[in-house]
Amino acid sequence: LLGTTLNTHGAWIGGELLKLGLRVRRQVTVPDGEAIGDELKRALVENDVILVSGGLGPTSDDLTREETARALGLDLIEDEFAVRTIKDFFSSRNMSMAECNLKQAFLPCGADVIPNPQGTAPGVYIPPRLGEFNCAVFLLPGPPSELRPMVLNEVIPRLQALTEDGELSEMLVMKFFSVGESDFHAVLDDDLSAIAGLEVGYCARPGDIDLRLIGNKAAIAEARSLVVKNFGEKCYSEADETIEQVVVKTLSDKGMKICTAESCTGGAIAARLTDVSGASKVFDRGYVTYANSAKSDLLGVSNDDIESNGAVSEEVAAAMAEGALKDANADIAVAVTGIAGPSGGTEDKPVGTVWISIALKSGETITYKEYHSRGREIFKIVVVQRILAKVWQLIREK
Amino acid sequence: LLGTTLNTHGAWIGGELLKLGLRVRRQVTVPDGEAIGDELKRALVENDVILVSGGLGPTSDDLTREETARALGLDLIEDEFAVRTIKDFFSSRNMSMAECNLKQAFLPCGADVIPNPQGTAPGVYIPPRLGEFNCAVFLLPGPPSELRPMVLNEVIPRLQALTEDGELSEMLVMKFFSVGESDFHAVLDDDLSAIAGLEVGYCARPGDIDLRLIGNKAAIAEARSLVVKNFGEKCYSEADETIEQVVVKTLSDKGMKICTAESCTGGAIAARLTDVSGASKVFDRGYVTYANSAKSDLLGVSNDDIESNGAVSEEVAAAMAEGALKDANADIAVAVTGIAGPSGGTEDKPVGTVWISIALKSGETITYKEYHSRGREIFKIVVVQRILAKVWQLIREK
Repeated sequence: LLGTTLNTHGAWIGGELLKLGLRVRRQVTVPDGEAIGDELKRALVENDVILVSGGLGPTSDDLTREETARALGLDLIEDEFAVRTIKDFFSSRNMSMAECNLKQAFLPCGADVIPNPQGTAPGVYIPPRLGEFNCAVFLLPGPPSELRPMVLNEVIPRLQALTEDGELSEMLVMKFFSVGESDFHAVLDDDLSAIAGLEVGYCARPGDIDLRLIGNKAAIAEARSLVVKNFGEKCYSEADETIEQVVVKTLSDKGMKICTAESCTGGAIAARLTDVSGASKVFDRGYVTYANSAKSDLLGVSNDDIESNGAVSEEVAAAMAEGALKDANADIAVAVTGIAGPSGGTEDKPVGTVWISIALKSGETITYKEYHSRGREIFKIVVVQRILAKVWQLIREK
Repeated sequence: LLGTTLNTHGAWIGGELLKLGLRVRRQVTVPDGEAIGDELKRALVENDVILVSGGLGPTSDDLTREETARALGLDLIEDEFAVRTIKDFFSSRNMSMAECNLKQAFLPCGADVIPNPQGTAPGVYIPPRLGEFNCAVFLLPGPPSELRPMVLNEVIPRLQALTEDGELSEMLVMKFFSVGESDFHAVLDDDLSAIAGLEVGYCARPGDIDLRLIGNKAAIAEARSLVVKNFGEKCYSEADETIEQVVVKTLSDKGMKICTAESCTGGAIAARLTDVSGASKVFDRGYVTYANSAKSDLLGVSNDDIESNGAVSEEVAAAMAEGALKDANADIAVAVTGIAGPSGGTEDKPVGTVWISIALKSGETITYKEYHSRGREIFKIVVVQRILAKVWQLIREK
């Protein structure tokens, strides 16, 4: 509400619950304090389930436990199991525990503790009818690294148990590169909207788009075959994987190794690849050659090439990729040099210009130019995304 | 609500209004349809101003105008000025206008049109007391590219006119490393809560915590001096900067260059540094040495050191940093080798173990071990954050 924190919980929880066929009816953000309890009082009479996040920490502005107890008309009592889990969290890390952490063990009377392996604040589950309301309430920690595993491992199983099993919707997430949302609309909208019981959603991110198909098995299968017929070539995952996961898996399956030589992306390609568990099977080393001297020292790019063509050029990109391949003894090397901005552009090479080169052990080197002028931050994300997609296109055929 | 769109309006609007000393009391997301009018009916009696975004387009699921009129008990009538602005939008772009666009000219009776130079859907302003409610309502388009200029150019001046000028709140955001939320609580809570008119908020992220002080100038100044006295050493920014921005700025001010040698962080330190515009002044090159062979080939780490101590060891971390410093001719080199997991841990060196070494041109090398066992994704974020903070601590004194 103060402009300092983006609400990423809302969208993430909405997406996860949709996979169970459950819809979020309303999402509300209120300030710390009595507004929490006031909002809960209202929500308790209108809803079947309430998920509350944040305000479970040890400090004076963490009032969610107190406000929830007030809204439900329950007392707060110290929970022995919660005391133990909090003490364990600290002792297992050889950390001393400030006394105030035990505030986090006070729960509305009769509530269940939800363990939080990622942090000190336990979650809280208040089953329906415990107070006077027929509504289940979950209190969840605020940090995404604590909230997300708790939702997946603890909340969803309880919601599944609460739900009478009707026909659940299923969801298929297909991920595409280099396709615009309007391409899908133009080609698919009429046919998809003719499929009964199908819901279609798009989620476009820089350089990437997800298509979500929601419905029963038959509707999803029909829709999927339509989508594959038209855009199958551009689909890199039907299992909600990232492009780096797909690249690492494909390289690993084929016994190939990749090497990176990055200028304008500054290590972000290597960082994305090594986000994937098992990356060490396919990635030995990467070079971040930001300065011209680094390009020549580490990759053997000739000073002549840099001086006559500029660091952002076909010649330098190709020399970077070939130098990295030679030195690293990998099967594929990817190099990138460009102008991320905001400064450094010229008339010939405006901010957003990027040269990409991919060298293969077979001797082939593919070098091409792209242009992405949407600001420094987006530039890096889009360039990395597109390079990884290009690598995947090349290696899947090998 | 379906997980496909992140709500960026909430935080952005909250931040802009705070600059005027106005607080967002509540932020609600509801689905298309009657939920809009139902929510408005409730909000109209509780609030002074309501900003509504989205649902102003020409299609059948765009119901915000209709639902607002219903909640206010007003008729929808075609507004001549709105018709003209919509027609002008198309004619000025030499585009033909689909008839359905004129749906966007129907406004609650007595409302003002807010021009939208960025799109076809005009905004709508319904002044207080126009219906039976003493509440101003703004209807704003959904796309950020249309909403943001409309808020800045049209909404804020009207809000300033509505506001009786009291004393405006200000906000100071202080950012800290290596301080737990409970540390603040234990040391500061009593003293801070004694300051009249001060609001305190915390936002904890992996390896990082923000403290927000909100109130009048005097209250903030008093609070700040308390905080600085106790935690000043750990405060890296009072201007809402990231740690990488602070590191790049400090290096730049001191004319120093940094080099990175990364194993378990896989290029993420370099990527974070080069996210900062101007990083090229302080960063020439980085090494991503994921495999043991890369550590010896690129950084001159001896095979003996690796074999006798393991790749995740004090000796290898220090050799990586010293090798990078020598080769890169930088003033400071930072090296990191660890076990990100989920596999690769041993009894001696469990998943989460990380050795960090920082070598300085002056000849000093600082090598230390940390342990972060919160999963691969968090591991990388925390390690990078803490290394950057450590680098900043070292260089600010140079």
